Amino acid sequence: MNNYRFTISYDGSRYNGWEHQKNTTQTIQGKIESVLAQMCENNAVQLIGAGRTDAGVHAQAMTANAHLNTALTPVDIKKYMNHYLPDDISINEVQIVPERFHSRYNAIGKTYRYTCYIGDTKPVFDRKYVAKLEKIPSLPLMREAAKLLIGTHDYASFCGNSKMTKSTVRTVDLIQIETQGDYLSFTFHGNGFLQYMIRILVGTLLEVGYQERTPQNMLHLLQIRDRSQAGFTAPPLGLCLIKVDYPAFTVPTRK
Amino acid sequence: MNNYRFTISYDGSRYNGWEHQKNTTQTIQGKIESVLAQMCENNAVQLIGAGRTDAGVHAQAMTANAHLNTALTPVDIKKYMNHYLPDDISINEVQIVPERFHSRYNAIGKTYRYTCYIGDTKPVFDRKYVAKLEKIPSLPLMREAAKLLIGTHDYASFCGNSKMTKSTVRTVDLIQIETQGDYLSFTFHGNGFLQYMIRILVGTLLEVGYQERTPQNMLHLLQIRDRSQAGFTAPPLGLCLIKVDYPAFTVPTRK
Repeated sequence: MNNYRFTISYDGSRYNGWEHQKNTTQTIQGKIESVLAQMCENNAVQLIGAGRTDAGVHAQAMTANAHLNTALTPVDIKKYMNHYLPDDISINEVQIVPERFHSRYNAIGKTYRYTCYIGDTKPVFDRKYVAKLEKIPSLPLMREAAKLLIGTHDYASFCGNSKMTKSTVRTVDLIQIETQGDYLSFTFHGNGFLQYMIRILVGTLLEVGYQERTPQNMLHLLQIRDRSQAGFTAPPLGLCLIKVDYPAFTVPTRK
Repeated sequence: MNNYRFTISYDGSRYNGWEHQKNTTQTIQGKIESVLAQMCENNAVQLIGAGRTDAGVHAQAMTANAHLNTALTPVDIKKYMNHYLPDDISINEVQIVPERFHSRYNAIGKTYRYTCYIGDTKPVFDRKYVAKLEKIPSLPLMREAAKLLIGTHDYASFCGNSKMTKSTVRTVDLIQIETQGDYLSFTFHGNGFLQYMIRILVGTLLEVGYQERTPQNMLHLLQIRDRSQAGFTAPPLGLCLIKVDYPAFTVPTRK
């Protein structure tokens, strides 16, 4: 039995998120596990994802791992999975990794990008991957606010899970806000993110960009630990998990 | 009554092509005409497109025109249309043009691009806009064949309409074949294209790239005027109308 690491792209539009849920089989994890189970002659398979993405959120490179009993090579596993998975889920890489590699526990960083459309027509070809804004927010104001949000902080005000009992302290070391043509993007890097955290950060930053709150208000939000004081939750379609980082020792040497 | 020119993007996936057809209202022309009719208090509107795109084919900048009785400004017409049209059709520009401008008769050139995916995973995010190839065709062979196809020729062997009674002579002055990362694209420019012509040209060029026919075979095909001798018709999803050219006098001065 080997431990396999998968790098996965998906268009989350049709799914109820990454993780298994009651009353639905329409999850990315569920789809992949059922193909793996079929491949492993219906032995139950447990696929461990680096994190959960919400319903409607996309991934360019989610990482997951599973211990599998199969005689297939990584190349053949990749072919098999891509053949049986739907068009909106792609297995980009399959690698054999050390026995103890765990895609969630070993993850040391994640990059997410949130993309908005700010043109004056309609984003016909990527309409499922961008959130359309009616007005163009102020970049300097949002960048000033973003600076105050960077660091190691208690992000409880930006946590969508009101029953969160574990620590809400995280380290965010990058919030980059850029425009390119008709698009505005927010790129986040940190050691981990709370539920809905990026979407609430984006909603709050947009409110700063629209002058509905000040950049300095961020300091207040980081102190009061009150979700109701932060901004709206930006819609899921604009969000994409770009990359998951692991320490070097977990990466197998490439042949 | 003014003559309005529209520049239109659409994702053709859900439609039975640009043009009206019996037994379906699911055409781009039909959708736009019904919004225009509603805008003009239900007076029937005739929208003239620069050409017809087939079912499933996309456009980055289709051009069309219509004579309309409305008090709205071009800016407001654009807003109105984008509001009422579905997400997969966008009006990018509305201009008042000379009374006699006709988007089909005045068109002097068209650019089309056909895009294939040649990577070894799946094109998750643009799966509706690219045709996936199982093998990578030879670029030098296809380019050699493309050179022989350029010029003013009778393209009857590349015409999908077997009942075509009009001339099948066209001028194609560009067939550019390029790869970029996991994508292979064919860009065509000419004074006009026959039904399915680009998709049959792409299918035939791919057969050259797979060494199923020689580049020299193109000369034979241009002579025999026999559709059955040319290659397969590439699927519609990879095709996109990029641009329609007009002589300078038809273009209004921008304010």
